Amino acid sequence: MKASRFFIGTLKEAPADAEIVSHQLMVRAGMIRRVAGGIYDYLPLGLRSIRKVEAIVRDEMEKAGALELLMPAVQPAELWQESGRWVKYGHELLRLKDRHDREFVIGPTHEEVVTDIARREIRSYRQLPVNFYQIQTKFRDEIRPRFGVMRGREFIMKDAYSFDRDVESLKLTYQKMYDAYVRIFSRMGLTFRAVAADNGSIGGTGSHEFQVIADTGEDAIVYCPTSDYAANIEAAEALPLLASRAAPAETMVKTATPGKAKCEDVAELLGIPLERTIKSIVMAVDAPEGEPRIVLLLIRGDHAINEVKVSKLPGLADARMATEQEIVDAFGAKPGYLGPIGTRKPLTVIADSTVANMSDFVVGANEVDYHLTGVNWGRDLPEPTVADVREVVAGDPSPDGKGVLNICRGIEVGQVFQLGTKYSDSMNATYLDESGKPQPMVMGCYGIGITRVLGAAIEQNFDERGIIWPESIAPFEVVVCPMGYDRSETVRAEADRVYGELKAAGIDAILDDRGERPGVMFADWELIGVPHRLVIGDRGLKEGKVEYQSRRDTEPTLLVAADAAGVVAQRVKAALER
Amino acid sequence: MKASRFFIGTLKEAPADAEIVSHQLMVRAGMIRRVAGGIYDYLPLGLRSIRKVEAIVRDEMEKAGALELLMPAVQPAELWQESGRWVKYGHELLRLKDRHDREFVIGPTHEEVVTDIARREIRSYRQLPVNFYQIQTKFRDEIRPRFGVMRGREFIMKDAYSFDRDVESLKLTYQKMYDAYVRIFSRMGLTFRAVAADNGSIGGTGSHEFQVIADTGEDAIVYCPTSDYAANIEAAEALPLLASRAAPAETMVKTATPGKAKCEDVAELLGIPLERTIKSIVMAVDAPEGEPRIVLLLIRGDHAINEVKVSKLPGLADARMATEQEIVDAFGAKPGYLGPIGTRKPLTVIADSTVANMSDFVVGANEVDYHLTGVNWGRDLPEPTVADVREVVAGDPSPDGKGVLNICRGIEVGQVFQLGTKYSDSMNATYLDESGKPQPMVMGCYGIGITRVLGAAIEQNFDERGIIWPESIAPFEVVVCPMGYDRSETVRAEADRVYGELKAAGIDAILDDRGERPGVMFADWELIGVPHRLVIGDRGLKEGKVEYQSRRDTEPTLLVAADAAGVVAQRVKAALER
Repeated sequence: MKASRFFIGTLKEAPADAEIVSHQLMVRAGMIRRVAGGIYDYLPLGLRSIRKVEAIVRDEMEKAGALELLMPAVQPAELWQESGRWVKYGHELLRLKDRHDREFVIGPTHEEVVTDIARREIRSYRQLPVNFYQIQTKFRDEIRPRFGVMRGREFIMKDAYSFDRDVESLKLTYQKMYDAYVRIFSRMGLTFRAVAADNGSIGGTGSHEFQVIADTGEDAIVYCPTSDYAANIEAAEALPLLASRAAPAETMVKTATPGKAKCEDVAELLGIPLERTIKSIVMAVDAPEGEPRIVLLLIRGDHAINEVKVSKLPGLADARMATEQEIVDAFGAKPGYLGPIGTRKPLTVIADSTVANMSDFVVGANEVDYHLTGVNWGRDLPEPTVADVREVVAGDPSPDGKGVLNICRGIEVGQVFQLGTKYSDSMNATYLDESGKPQPMVMGCYGIGITRVLGAAIEQNFDERGIIWPESIAPFEVVVCPMGYDRSETVRAEADRVYGELKAAGIDAILDDRGERPGVMFADWELIGVPHRLVIGDRGLKEGKVEYQSRRDTEPTLLVAADAAGVVAQRVKAALER
Repeated sequence: MKASRFFIGTLKEAPADAEIVSHQLMVRAGMIRRVAGGIYDYLPLGLRSIRKVEAIVRDEMEKAGALELLMPAVQPAELWQESGRWVKYGHELLRLKDRHDREFVIGPTHEEVVTDIARREIRSYRQLPVNFYQIQTKFRDEIRPRFGVMRGREFIMKDAYSFDRDVESLKLTYQKMYDAYVRIFSRMGLTFRAVAADNGSIGGTGSHEFQVIADTGEDAIVYCPTSDYAANIEAAEALPLLASRAAPAETMVKTATPGKAKCEDVAELLGIPLERTIKSIVMAVDAPEGEPRIVLLLIRGDHAINEVKVSKLPGLADARMATEQEIVDAFGAKPGYLGPIGTRKPLTVIADSTVANMSDFVVGANEVDYHLTGVNWGRDLPEPTVADVREVVAGDPSPDGKGVLNICRGIEVGQVFQLGTKYSDSMNATYLDESGKPQPMVMGCYGIGITRVLGAAIEQNFDERGIIWPESIAPFEVVVCPMGYDRSETVRAEADRVYGELKAAGIDAILDDRGERPGVMFADWELIGVPHRLVIGDRGLKEGKVEYQSRRDTEPTLLVAADAAGVVAQRVKAALER
């Protein structure tokens, strides 16, 4: 490609609404332009990277035996009513009516449509397993779209849906997809982790998120540096920090703690470690009739509750924080002095697994300005229900017993799910087994945010000058910058020759023949983030040399002009094979 | 690809709603499935052909210097309000509101969005010309979607939009696109004509439609077999069939024609040729205030009116057929006996160019059961306004003077338009010329119905057994059918070898390893329409032979087994280069 025939839309300034670096750089580099909130044009430069991401995804999906198809963006409401998500999905589902007043949605995902295909097309166990995928534009009506392609409303997804005869077969398909995802993100040149994940609203069991590691990531990722354990913080198991419970050594005493409503303050006042205190969290579950059920969750004073873990406990799927009124009614005291002993009403007590092994601990006395010290399970209050309800912290033991956990931040770019029979049950998608009996198909689903990958790659790879693309998803692999293309015959001829040689070697090169000043030219390509640059000028050519600089180098190096294209082509190919 | 790993969804019966052969065959071959009216799933087989169509289009667009980008499906209403099409476009524009009650449309086309890009990104004449294209899913809310992909609601389009500094430059860009379209449809192996077209509602001047010739086509195409003249029937110029007007030979006489309301019946009663009679067509143009304006159009008795031509006449853009009441009020008679002489009210008379040269003709007397015979212009009534308002018929002289016109039927698969400044004016898309003065960009637009191409190709290429794909857009180029893949070691080994050799030669082959009976296997592949078939069986292999049959052959021929892959690969490649 010659730059004069391409469209380069670099900007000096980022728009005011661009809060994060990938959004700023994608706009400044001329990759995207805003059309409406969360809705973008992908300019030719941006689309080149998208197409490269798509090609890698398609290649690995095909290698993994998945079949590409294409489902519609506009989907009839009936399918969503059948699955139950017409009601459950909420306002992110953009609903609309056609000219005949029939209801449709713009698909944010395609479980319903693909399950409808499967139930119509698949009759027999002999047709299973099958894995359908598509690369398609989706719409999710985010209440507050932001961060450019990271949380847009219209976006491109690769979504795959597998159908197996049983859970064992699903697990094989799932592993194939997991492995394909590892290859996909590796080929994209990204540093990522596959982390065990909470399933979210999609249902089913067994899921991993593929997280691109970046300081600016929205998600907290828990991992063990000395093993391959990794999980989303919502799914990371928190082991008890005490192996067993010590025998009581103290007597329970009601102690004045005036004005000390926080564990930290109580510990300081009493001169004890924060690890001896227990925090009371009160949640409520609304009942169809009558009073809400009140649940007291106990975690160690230095820990935080994990509401996703709580929501997984039996009967607590819809638990919410209790109101102050509900708390006063149940405990007879206001928050800050609550505890499991002497509550006004009987209630469910759930102790975190660490709390369950504590002894001689401190809890609120259910009376303002008082706590109970030297409290012990069994002796002073009944044995609690035990559960893992706290968030892990750095330094916790790894659940696999192979080290200590660390926490970093990541951007989710893909997810693999074992859906099970959630949709095949609700939509009656069955196959006939060997004995002719109908069985529900066992499903998996596998997403990659194609446009989101661009943003994540940038959040991981940038500097003050702009984007630094991995070769495999760069809009161009090499830029040839002639110094005075319009003035020097020698420079022009050599630039054309080097560019031609790169193209002949199969390199995706661009020749900047615009005749811009070197400063403008270099700034543009550093902002755009082309990973390799060759500068061709009269001065160097006198010595038979051209300047090479990788986007990560701080200084250029000299290459023999005759060899330059070959050397750079080799470097690109080596990078693509990594 | 091996058939056992692919998804083959052939059906014995077409669905009841499939009225035309391409719709029937696409469903039966397992290419598409209906999701809702005019909304389809593209199953893996269908998508393979779509991807091949897209690849040809993309390749030729790139060669013609167009730049691919991607605009959103969901577009803000503001842009459509600015262009004026929010009001004008009608019910085919699917409007919707997001969760914040802001109005959007699902784009049926992208003039507004691309003009918005151009006005923001293009500053100077130095950035022109530029031609942006995309391959994208569109939605048009057809009142009565039918004919499968031929008139669907959700469909894939390639749409390109060019921006030039002036009309001369646009004409060069337009010619480039015209030439690219000729290459595109030639490479697809289609028989087509580029025909001069009416511009329709999109506005501007200068347009061609690319029509795939098929007896089942919706559009009538007028062409001259002895020259390169071709036009949509709505745009084809009808020359006067009489070179000049003969002198009057008869006297005007009021003649009784009881019950003869049609020209044919009047001619028969009077014993004169139908070519001596004149038909009266009455149209009305509503005025903002007061009575509608009544217009009388006169065409020869054997001709038909062309309403599109009428709508192009000054002041008649919104003309409609007059109601019976309006006719009686204006003429004092009811339809069947109308004429230009002795009307109750004065009205505009427009004579077709052939009618203007007639003499001694017959018109209605504006009295039931009476006509006037021997009528002559100038003598019996004033000279009329003359215009081309009739539809051409086969046998008419070609407007280029190089022969006689013929009429065939076609399916529009592409269109190129010279838009001019319609959108750049309304949306204020200007560039600065050499003197720094803002000038409106001069636009062109160029569409190809990607999914429609599949339907058109089938309407042109099928037989009673199924589809007959041109090689370049076939889902597979060659099918290898082993007779007893699961039983005969020899057959299996030879089939695998031939298939492997085809793949190594770059041929898109499929090996039918499903173990189906020959009858089922052959019926499937003939229905699907794979253009080349190799049948490998024990009997032939004993003689070292395999059976080859092209989809258009009635009988197979024998090929030496060792050469078969090479021979077939050559045939495919030769076809692709045609």
